[in-house]
Amino acid sequence: MLNTYAALLSKVREQKPLVHHITNYVTVNDCANATLGIGASPVMADAIGEAADIAAIASSVVLNMGTLNERTIPSMVAAGKAANEKGIPVVFDPVGAGASKLRNETAARILSDVKLSVLRGNISEIKFVAGQQSETKGVDASESDTANASGAGNLAKELAQKLDCVVVISGAVDTVSDGKKTVFVENGQPMLGSLTGTGCMCTSLIGAFCGAMPSEPLAAAAAAMLCMSIAGELAYGKTEQQGAGSFHMALHNEISLMDAGVLERLAKIREA
Amino acid sequence: MLNTYAALLSKVREQKPLVHHITNYVTVNDCANATLGIGASPVMADAIGEAADIAAIASSVVLNMGTLNERTIPSMVAAGKAANEKGIPVVFDPVGAGASKLRNETAARILSDVKLSVLRGNISEIKFVAGQQSETKGVDASESDTANASGAGNLAKELAQKLDCVVVISGAVDTVSDGKKTVFVENGQPMLGSLTGTGCMCTSLIGAFCGAMPSEPLAAAAAAMLCMSIAGELAYGKTEQQGAGSFHMALHNEISLMDAGVLERLAKIREA
Amino acid sequence: MLNTYAALLSKVREQKPLVHHITNYVTVNDCANATLGIGASPVMADAIGEAADIAAIASSVVLNMGTLNERTIPSMVAAGKAANEKGIPVVFDPVGAGASKLRNETAARILSDVKLSVLRGNISEIKFVAGQQSETKGVDASESDTANASGAGNLAKELAQKLDCVVVISGAVDTVSDGKKTVFVENGQPMLGSLTGTGCMCTSLIGAFCGAMPSEPLAAAAAAMLCMSIAGELAYGKTEQQGAGSFHMALHNEISLMDAGVLERLAKIREA
Repeated sequence: MLNTYAALLSKVREQKPLVHHITNYVTVNDCANATLGIGASPVMADAIGEAADIAAIASSVVLNMGTLNERTIPSMVAAGKAANEKGIPVVFDPVGAGASKLRNETAARILSDVKLSVLRGNISEIKFVAGQQSETKGVDASESDTANASGAGNLAKELAQKLDCVVVISGAVDTVSDGKKTVFVENGQPMLGSLTGTGCMCTSLIGAFCGAMPSEPLAAAAAAMLCMSIAGELAYGKTEQQGAGSFHMALHNEISLMDAGVLERLAKIREA
Repeated sequence: MLNTYAALLSKVREQKPLVHHITNYVTVNDCANATLGIGASPVMADAIGEAADIAAIASSVVLNMGTLNERTIPSMVAAGKAANEKGIPVVFDPVGAGASKLRNETAARILSDVKLSVLRGNISEIKFVAGQQSETKGVDASESDTANASGAGNLAKELAQKLDCVVVISGAVDTVSDGKKTVFVENGQPMLGSLTGTGCMCTSLIGAFCGAMPSEPLAAAAAAMLCMSIAGELAYGKTEQQGAGSFHMALHNEISLMDAGVLERLAKIREA
Repeated sequence: MLNTYAALLSKVREQKPLVHHITNYVTVNDCANATLGIGASPVMADAIGEAADIAAIASSVVLNMGTLNERTIPSMVAAGKAANEKGIPVVFDPVGAGASKLRNETAARILSDVKLSVLRGNISEIKFVAGQQSETKGVDASESDTANASGAGNLAKELAQKLDCVVVISGAVDTVSDGKKTVFVENGQPMLGSLTGTGCMCTSLIGAFCGAMPSEPLAAAAAAMLCMSIAGELAYGKTEQQGAGSFHMALHNEISLMDAGVLERLAKIREA
């Protein structure tokens, strides 16, 4: 499977898929630069007057509800539906699901109106979406990231079956499941949690990979999580002790320098 | 008092208070990363459909009117009122007060509808809020930052008494007053003025400290200004001559590395 | 002509013109920091309740439709008209013109309602604005940046005559024309295309230079493009192989360090 991931990365760099984002204004710059860094092309367009038009010419659509509002929620739905009509993959990041009624209703609306290729969140967001008891504190994971991977594995698998899409649960170990097969990405760096936007960047990278390979959302999502996790490891190795600013810069360096060789050499993947 | 500030920093890092921001889209990423860097947890949620809900579960609320608009002004008021009801501290940054009728009216509305714990601005913004003659040129300080600290001291003290909250005036020397006691932070680096968002980041740090110690807004605000000013000094020391990009990165490094020992060793505080 | 550009840079640093932006939320932080780096002062204010008021006290107005929406389009028009009334230069960046009906209509509306000093875009955006067949893929240039400069030269010249403003076409060679004289900036670095916002930053720098010298839009635009292109070369020289994050940081360094001497020494200008 490893050479699949490496081959997918090459595909992204060759095809430069256009990734349409409706996302939050906090981390949007990092999302755009991560998308460019991995070799794809970002476009952000959230006006209701063009969201569907841009989605229809994109290679993939990323919906991220980090700073959702009354104006952009209908745009997310419209972009998602337009993508669905053309068979363009949609990736959804239910940021902060569980933290407010508006977020809960919006997540439910998107799940009901839009067919997803990939759903990605942290464990508390995904638990909430799955209808399990969960406590979301703001937009960061409130439950231990070290929740054992097998628990996340079952959750991801069952939700993937229920929603008929790939489910990604980010954490110390990332879990990626399409309901049949589950991939655990054991790479990563705790410092990724000290920077805003690293979750959103994962979602954007999934968008980039899905854009290059719409028919293989499981491999696309796993390859994206692998790139981000390995970039985090390499960035930390080069900036350890220097602080969050240097790590931020180095993370973008490593995403932009990621290649098939690095990915194959450093990947720690387990499949079930 | 110095060990109070150092102890407060430890408290922030232990408690990881959730700091709800309704802020501008120019510097929001820096605000989020500064909040994380100091050890707190940022959440940005400005939709009227959730602003009050998120405020009610936060440890503190930061209202920053940098890119205010018709949609977010009511959200700021709603978040402020919801925080007030629960005794959650509210920090207000009247960015650009004096520069337009909309900003003037909005600042007045927030001051009238919301009980603040801390008000922070540069000298021209604070003068405007205090009803004094002032000339705001855009969103940056138009009057000399080197206006002597004693003038700012009286202004801060009187306004603090009038508004019954802590007032912070940023400048070459930062002035922090609760109307009884006034603290002057004599640390700082002029290069902080060459970067967008350093004022906003101060406000976010005040939010983080108030979240950890809601009953001590004077100490919280002074500790936050101390952290930012010392981080600026250290960042400049490590990147002098390299330019604004390196300084920006180093500033985030130093915020994330700030600890009680550094703070106690480098603080230049004067109290009156 | 070269010492004109160098003199203009000194003028920006002396006058610190206030550059009012209505721009997108993706690259706005880079635009603000580039504006500060070159020596000007940015203000971002897009509410309809203040867009015209802020424009009227600014030295120049930058309209960038990167993330245009129903709320901000009228603000762009209002700011542009208010600037026109006072003789304040307006710079327009028709980001993604050609990519959606909404963008096309908005570009047309601004061209019809607002008198521009400078229009800046990539070759596909400018072709679209000029009414030529063009294919805009998202917000990045879809046609070869290496399209020869003489083709761009004729396009810029004719459109400048038609719109009676300076037209800038960004590319491997930047083309700047007022319809009579055309300046080709042959500096630059391909890596500028791997970072989001470098086009927007060019537009902001043009705003800064126009603010300092409203009567000379051709020289102002050429000087701005020269600064950005040379900054890109220097940044790449210092961070080659390190990746996109280091290049991003170095680019801001070089903008902030740019001076007349560097500009005169490194400029590669051709005039026609």
